[in-house]
Amino acid sequence: MKKIAVMITDLFEDSEYREPVQAFRDAGHQVVTVGLEGGKTVFGKTEKTRVKIERSVHDTHVNDYDALFIPGGYSPDKLRADPVAVGFVREFVLSGKPVLGICHAPQLLISARVLEGRRITGYVSIIQDIINAGAEFVDQEVVRDNNLLFSRNPGDLPAFINASLAMLAEGQDPR
Amino acid sequence: MKKIAVMITDLFEDSEYREPVQAFRDAGHQVVTVGLEGGKTVFGKTEKTRVKIERSVHDTHVNDYDALFIPGGYSPDKLRADPVAVGFVREFVLSGKPVLGICHAPQLLISARVLEGRRITGYVSIIQDIINAGAEFVDQEVVRDNNLLFSRNPGDLPAFINASLAMLAEGQDPR
Repeated sequence: MKKIAVMITDLFEDSEYREPVQAFRDAGHQVVTVGLEGGKTVFGKTEKTRVKIERSVHDTHVNDYDALFIPGGYSPDKLRADPVAVGFVREFVLSGKPVLGICHAPQLLISARVLEGRRITGYVSIIQDIINAGAEFVDQEVVRDNNLLFSRNPGDLPAFINASLAMLAEGQDPR
Repeated sequence: MKKIAVMITDLFEDSEYREPVQAFRDAGHQVVTVGLEGGKTVFGKTEKTRVKIERSVHDTHVNDYDALFIPGGYSPDKLRADPVAVGFVREFVLSGKPVLGICHAPQLLISARVLEGRRITGYVSIIQDIINAGAEFVDQEVVRDNNLLFSRNPGDLPAFINASLAMLAEGQDPR
């Protein structure tokens, strides 16, 4: 099982948090919510799903986790305004550990300047930003490029969850 | 007086719509709200300000207006997912008519691919996107580059409104 940092703040896309996190937990992985302020409760964009932030990104380290998951909505836009959050994502991508994201999540990787030469997908509104960052935008439900695994929108969630669980299981002994 | 298209949809930043539009009207300009669907009411992000969309961008033309104003918030992210809205912004910028924007408004110009070599400012979270689009990001309350006049956030509104009114008055006889 893996320890997964879920990077999230207000206005996240509810289903893009709830469904993968439930699947990760059901598969036996540990999920830790990482946000801008520890102890704070943040809310989803549409259904006002409540999420308690367990760790501030200002007070945690990439070494503490095996993987990173970034849900979409407008949460990534808010997180990328914080240089420490951007630095955390940058370190994670460069570490080679799995980085899973969906929808607007690539915005954080753009600010972290780690997309040059990578293949990725994301929400339709940010396609030009992804291309301008030097990445190849691929219009598929799941796009994996080494340690990056991304999807476009909530419609891709079933495929995203399956591919994420398979990636997280790599190198693990069957239990 | 000028006829100004205000491009807007749901989740706009309330003050970034209300205050400039009030100032434009007080100065005698005509304001027309242009969105994705004519007759629809859209709502602000924070204070739920109601705005009735007068014209769909699918059913109007740059020739009908003297200037374009794009409020911020998450409205530009939603608008840029529509190719017709992006094309409207592109034509406006290339027409040389005034294009006024604040906060996340540059996202529409990024999708319209009209920022190469331009000087502009915008909200802190999109700085890397602006740079990646080939523009020079300037961290000032108002940045004007020929027909483009942009500001960063609601704190810049007084300076933005003053500069916008001055720009809209250019070439007009005093009345």
